[in-house]
Amino acid sequence: MSDVRKVVLAYSGGLDTSVILKWLQDTYRCEVVTFTADLGQGEELEPARQKALALGIKPENIFIDDLRETFVRDFVFPMFRANAIYEGEYLLGTSIARPLIAKRQIEIARATGADAVAHGATGKGNDQVRFELGYYALMPEIKVIAPWREWDLNSREKLLAYAEKHGIPIEQKHREGGAPYSMDANLLHISYEGRHLEDPTAEPEASMWRWTVAPEEAPDTPEYVELTFEKGDLVAIDGERMRPHELLAKLNELGGKHGVGRLDLVENRYVGMKSRGCYETPGGTILLKAHRAIESITLDREVAHLKDDLMPRYAALIYNGYWFSPERQALQALIDFTQQTVNGWVRVKLYKGSVMVVARDSATDSLFDPTIATFEDDRGAYNQKDAEGFIRLNSLRLRIAAKLAAKRRR
Amino acid sequence: MSDVRKVVLAYSGGLDTSVILKWLQDTYRCEVVTFTADLGQGEELEPARQKALALGIKPENIFIDDLRETFVRDFVFPMFRANAIYEGEYLLGTSIARPLIAKRQIEIARATGADAVAHGATGKGNDQVRFELGYYALMPEIKVIAPWREWDLNSREKLLAYAEKHGIPIEQKHREGGAPYSMDANLLHISYEGRHLEDPTAEPEASMWRWTVAPEEAPDTPEYVELTFEKGDLVAIDGERMRPHELLAKLNELGGKHGVGRLDLVENRYVGMKSRGCYETPGGTILLKAHRAIESITLDREVAHLKDDLMPRYAALIYNGYWFSPERQALQALIDFTQQTVNGWVRVKLYKGSVMVVARDSATDSLFDPTIATFEDDRGAYNQKDAEGFIRLNSLRLRIAAKLAAKRRR
Amino acid sequence: MSDVRKVVLAYSGGLDTSVILKWLQDTYRCEVVTFTADLGQGEELEPARQKALALGIKPENIFIDDLRETFVRDFVFPMFRANAIYEGEYLLGTSIARPLIAKRQIEIARATGADAVAHGATGKGNDQVRFELGYYALMPEIKVIAPWREWDLNSREKLLAYAEKHGIPIEQKHREGGAPYSMDANLLHISYEGRHLEDPTAEPEASMWRWTVAPEEAPDTPEYVELTFEKGDLVAIDGERMRPHELLAKLNELGGKHGVGRLDLVENRYVGMKSRGCYETPGGTILLKAHRAIESITLDREVAHLKDDLMPRYAALIYNGYWFSPERQALQALIDFTQQTVNGWVRVKLYKGSVMVVARDSATDSLFDPTIATFEDDRGAYNQKDAEGFIRLNSLRLRIAAKLAAKRRR
Amino acid sequence: MSDVRKVVLAYSGGLDTSVILKWLQDTYRCEVVTFTADLGQGEELEPARQKALALGIKPENIFIDDLRETFVRDFVFPMFRANAIYEGEYLLGTSIARPLIAKRQIEIARATGADAVAHGATGKGNDQVRFELGYYALMPEIKVIAPWREWDLNSREKLLAYAEKHGIPIEQKHREGGAPYSMDANLLHISYEGRHLEDPTAEPEASMWRWTVAPEEAPDTPEYVELTFEKGDLVAIDGERMRPHELLAKLNELGGKHGVGRLDLVENRYVGMKSRGCYETPGGTILLKAHRAIESITLDREVAHLKDDLMPRYAALIYNGYWFSPERQALQALIDFTQQTVNGWVRVKLYKGSVMVVARDSATDSLFDPTIATFEDDRGAYNQKDAEGFIRLNSLRLRIAAKLAAKRRR
Repeated sequence: MSDVRKVVLAYSGGLDTSVILKWLQDTYRCEVVTFTADLGQGEELEPARQKALALGIKPENIFIDDLRETFVRDFVFPMFRANAIYEGEYLLGTSIARPLIAKRQIEIARATGADAVAHGATGKGNDQVRFELGYYALMPEIKVIAPWREWDLNSREKLLAYAEKHGIPIEQKHREGGAPYSMDANLLHISYEGRHLEDPTAEPEASMWRWTVAPEEAPDTPEYVELTFEKGDLVAIDGERMRPHELLAKLNELGGKHGVGRLDLVENRYVGMKSRGCYETPGGTILLKAHRAIESITLDREVAHLKDDLMPRYAALIYNGYWFSPERQALQALIDFTQQTVNGWVRVKLYKGSVMVVARDSATDSLFDPTIATFEDDRGAYNQKDAEGFIRLNSLRLRIAAKLAAKRRR
Repeated sequence: MSDVRKVVLAYSGGLDTSVILKWLQDTYRCEVVTFTADLGQGEELEPARQKALALGIKPENIFIDDLRETFVRDFVFPMFRANAIYEGEYLLGTSIARPLIAKRQIEIARATGADAVAHGATGKGNDQVRFELGYYALMPEIKVIAPWREWDLNSREKLLAYAEKHGIPIEQKHREGGAPYSMDANLLHISYEGRHLEDPTAEPEASMWRWTVAPEEAPDTPEYVELTFEKGDLVAIDGERMRPHELLAKLNELGGKHGVGRLDLVENRYVGMKSRGCYETPGGTILLKAHRAIESITLDREVAHLKDDLMPRYAALIYNGYWFSPERQALQALIDFTQQTVNGWVRVKLYKGSVMVVARDSATDSLFDPTIATFEDDRGAYNQKDAEGFIRLNSLRLRIAAKLAAKRRR
Repeated sequence: MSDVRKVVLAYSGGLDTSVILKWLQDTYRCEVVTFTADLGQGEELEPARQKALALGIKPENIFIDDLRETFVRDFVFPMFRANAIYEGEYLLGTSIARPLIAKRQIEIARATGADAVAHGATGKGNDQVRFELGYYALMPEIKVIAPWREWDLNSREKLLAYAEKHGIPIEQKHREGGAPYSMDANLLHISYEGRHLEDPTAEPEASMWRWTVAPEEAPDTPEYVELTFEKGDLVAIDGERMRPHELLAKLNELGGKHGVGRLDLVENRYVGMKSRGCYETPGGTILLKAHRAIESITLDREVAHLKDDLMPRYAALIYNGYWFSPERQALQALIDFTQQTVNGWVRVKLYKGSVMVVARDSATDSLFDPTIATFEDDRGAYNQKDAEGFIRLNSLRLRIAAKLAAKRRR
Repeated sequence: MSDVRKVVLAYSGGLDTSVILKWLQDTYRCEVVTFTADLGQGEELEPARQKALALGIKPENIFIDDLRETFVRDFVFPMFRANAIYEGEYLLGTSIARPLIAKRQIEIARATGADAVAHGATGKGNDQVRFELGYYALMPEIKVIAPWREWDLNSREKLLAYAEKHGIPIEQKHREGGAPYSMDANLLHISYEGRHLEDPTAEPEASMWRWTVAPEEAPDTPEYVELTFEKGDLVAIDGERMRPHELLAKLNELGGKHGVGRLDLVENRYVGMKSRGCYETPGGTILLKAHRAIESITLDREVAHLKDDLMPRYAALIYNGYWFSPERQALQALIDFTQQTVNGWVRVKLYKGSVMVVARDSATDSLFDPTIATFEDDRGAYNQKDAEGFIRLNSLRLRIAAKLAAKRRR
């Protein structure tokens, strides 16, 4: 056990991180600094302060920050410029939040002179990687403590016994078996893993979903929403400009009301195993669809295809925790370069779980030219005869090969 | 005008290709062979025979083929093994049918000793490219006639006047202004382009859609469907084995009933312009979702990512008409190699326009290992301590760079 | 034949473009503006002025520009940041010069109020595409005249007869059959195509090569050269800072002396055919090798791999003439982003046709850390035990699959 | 320390693996099986048997196999079909040998009922990863012992002391400081790392290189060699058919004589650090050049580009040790598919360190069509006018964007 003087713990105020807090004090005999972030998870944060104080943390060692605007502006929005989806389905809601938490922990470590950081992620998941790659990229000499990989409290019973023994308050739900799922929430999504979901043939219980109504319960009338984009980022909803996190919160409200954004999948973790997860990403689902639509009229074809070719790689980088890597930054430079012309608006229709784009336009950057595309007489905007040469030369290599093949058959 | 002796025309029996038939006879003074394919577009084909006869085609020069099974087994299914989507949205329903038509035309040309082929696609679209790349790849010396690029019948009025003059029967709808949209249908989809849709801000009229009910009109009760896959191909629905085209027809019926598979987008054509299109792909939408789900438990992570990285390229090849190219075949060799283990079943829930995967399993090939993924005690199946070394080495390059950056700042 | 008022011709002063000049005057009855560029091809340009005057071009319509510095700084160097090679071998010497010529022609067209541009590239090659894509990207309404695709002077005899008839001076070499090869030269390379080379089994004659001595004739003593890089660009040779084109000229001199940079290959043209070409790129060959070497110690691994993955695509864009396309610019944004840390020096050894890197270092940006890499005791800089977890988790998916395969076999 | 009954050790007979042998016996108290492979490293293997016997290994536990043919046919040649190069330079000589050793070790483990395998690679290098990924992919339950990560013999002194103490014979060279470099050799290459080379600014000593003469010492007369390929594999040299390993040995002899294939570079290891390495790959350097040349006339352009795009990924997989992974196999399926037409011959010229292709042809599969490529009159094989339409449509998106940009500027 290495020597630790002061550790900054990512602290939610829940049972697990409270036990970690105590365990750090006992095991490392070090000063603990707690850091609790508001990323829009929809929980009160002040109770975390009270719990930390009760566990002996000095007031000046308790950090509670509202990171919602930063989260959406500097992490979620840049990622959506790339249309990032992991494995064809997952919108990376948890993945994109971890680097921000890591970054803030390191800032606090520097501010408080701490020499270590700790988190409550297990040794089987992706989050440990995302936290720790962030720590190391920002402060390579930092000492990282991952209690779930170190201690022997590897069952719920042992954890509760430890809490009991050390006077950590245990809510009734924990005594009754704890949350039925492992959950993570922020402004972009809420996720569910574990327990019942570990059987990939079992449909999630209706009661699991928290942010969206069931499509069956959604309004019988569709709702139209207009999203305005500037340089690839959402800036207004139905004409009303808001700050980034307010926009995403508004989209969540709209999507949630219409049952948009539920997802049930088996994904491949970076640590090498497959895992079942369920997600609700109401606002993000709308945003992705609309962003693709505004790009469809403002991006050049080859630029769009280049982005599509690189997207899975970009998404995997974020999934795997490489937000602060130079390769993510290089890809971001390319992506951001392309978004200069992504200005305009998109109208979507929300209805019982689906999002459909029905209109899109750009006053300044539309590359859609109806005078060329028209089935009607285009008055010479496009010379159909050009197509013959285009096809003749594009087929030249195929024709040469076919002639050779014919000769070979003879 | 080059010398043509006998031409095989892709003939639908409609007004346009009837005018083309006549125009070919008049312009090239050549024998015309008509070819009409059943690709599941849902139209009677026998009327095409009567029309061809009426236009003077010899009975032995009229070819009407049911290509539905070939279409789905040898074109649609191989494409779905790749999870192909063009520009994030389009399921390539028209693109995948053209090569088969081209192939059959060439076979008929060989069988009848024809020296030319003709099609009814315009000089602005993708279909001319898809047809002609197919022709050239299969019979490089063939003469290709694309009347829309040659003649001067470049308005509806001129076309009708020509038909009138040559005694080609004109249905009432044409006199009233013709179809409100340009449509193309086959077992995979129906597409709409032109007219009203040329304004990308105009939502399609409700009356346009033909294959799917509006989600608003779909049943109030969700329906569960189970799809069984073998080597990446659908082989049974709800346990009932059917032939490929029967399976896709069944999925279309199910999807259509639940309003699944409508799409409204602006896409980038190979000839260089953007165009608005609307599509209904009810069965294909379900199939893609389910195929990804069965892959999610049977494919290795890196294989899945490799496929994802290559998918946009594969999709663009098909969109652009390169089905018979060696690069498509090389990619297909890779894709087919990966599908050996893609065996199992997927359960989806259809409801008012949405498809949700709720369960998936494989008796023989599941790589999902609950003993490793579990949040509970795994009895040593996975050593959480391994994660530390994994993260330490994955971060090594980041740590070295961060140390250098810190030194540089000093 | 469309109406043309004034045309800017890319004019070398040679026989072919002199005939074109005359043909343009006769055929289009338009004013001709000549543009002759010094790209370091090593020819006197003033004779071109005399010839243009003799053909009746007004003095104010004759443009002769020294573009050497721009060429190397704004075209060659950005391309070398990408380590661009086409089809594993070709350093893109001709490809990279065409966009600059096109750009300058368009500038002159704007300055002189011309409504057309013309070039002397044939209808079979890549250069026509590179010129014209440049023209269209920079001035979409410009009229492009490509005489080789229009006229009927499609044999050497007809061309000479035309020249004779119109009083265009014909050098003796043309009367004797013309140049044995089609050549193109600029500061980056000289290329040879055609004639004897059209047989891909025929070795080029020793007399063909112009810029490099035969390795057999090169000095018997190796020469060491040190190249200094800043942000990925060469800035000094053996410690002497020079301007970009001076540096490349110096490298050409060094490489030429030691027989470096000869290449004989069959390449795939954009228009669809294969063609044999020979190239001498003495300076470029040294530069590429050295640039990779300085990157080897200053670039992050994943950034380097990302660049390698994208390089063939970038090279094909340049080969095909898409320098002014948004996708090339987006890739350049990524590439340039990565070059911020590419600072340092490289020592190479030149000897009888080969370039070998023997040393490289960076005072500010070396990521090479001997304390970690050492085979000797590293005093704890690297914990070898980390490798176990790294391997265990990287193999997890392979182990799961192998277990399943074993179970299946049973 | 886990329980081990019998371990198969990759045993070279040298000091290090002899110490490991003894250490395994002492530490694990287990039976040791030795495996020594002839991969063409050019060393006698029988001394390894004597040493093993002397260290108490039972005769039936000593395996000495000649794997040269398998190595070249099933590992080297498939890799060369891909034109694999790591980081633009390295021909993967060590990387490609490790999987075969791992495979044979596992076969021996199965044959002898061993429950563990061991190797002599350190915890800092790539080889540990390559060995162990192989072991785990082929026998996931195997116990892996990597002594260099476990023991405390982490200096040369301790190792010698251990050998001395246990009666392991120590050659004089070890007493004098050991080999000046860490070396690895097989039929494809010999590599040098460590010591003097740990300074990336220090040129290797002339005495280091073992397989190639210095270019300065190479013959003054160039030598021409003709290589014949079938399905992408070398089958004959100068018309003489030989077995794969004989062919590679012959190429090594030719390359070595002419000073071909020396390389000095800094590479990025999979474990995260940069390291300096020098390599001699005489035959491989010739083979790669020739393979690209035969592909240049027999492969379709887009297939060649697809291979180029995927090559760095394939090379990294091999470098990182993923030979037995499904993603490498999927890529191989694509690559092998493309090689069906790669038949023909290539003539290269070897001279003082350089390899130059001077001729190439294929009687059956050449796609080079001189009637089309010719600068002379092609009698209509190619219609130059086609190029206009080709360029017009390829530039359409650029023209639309340029028009929009012009409008925006106004």
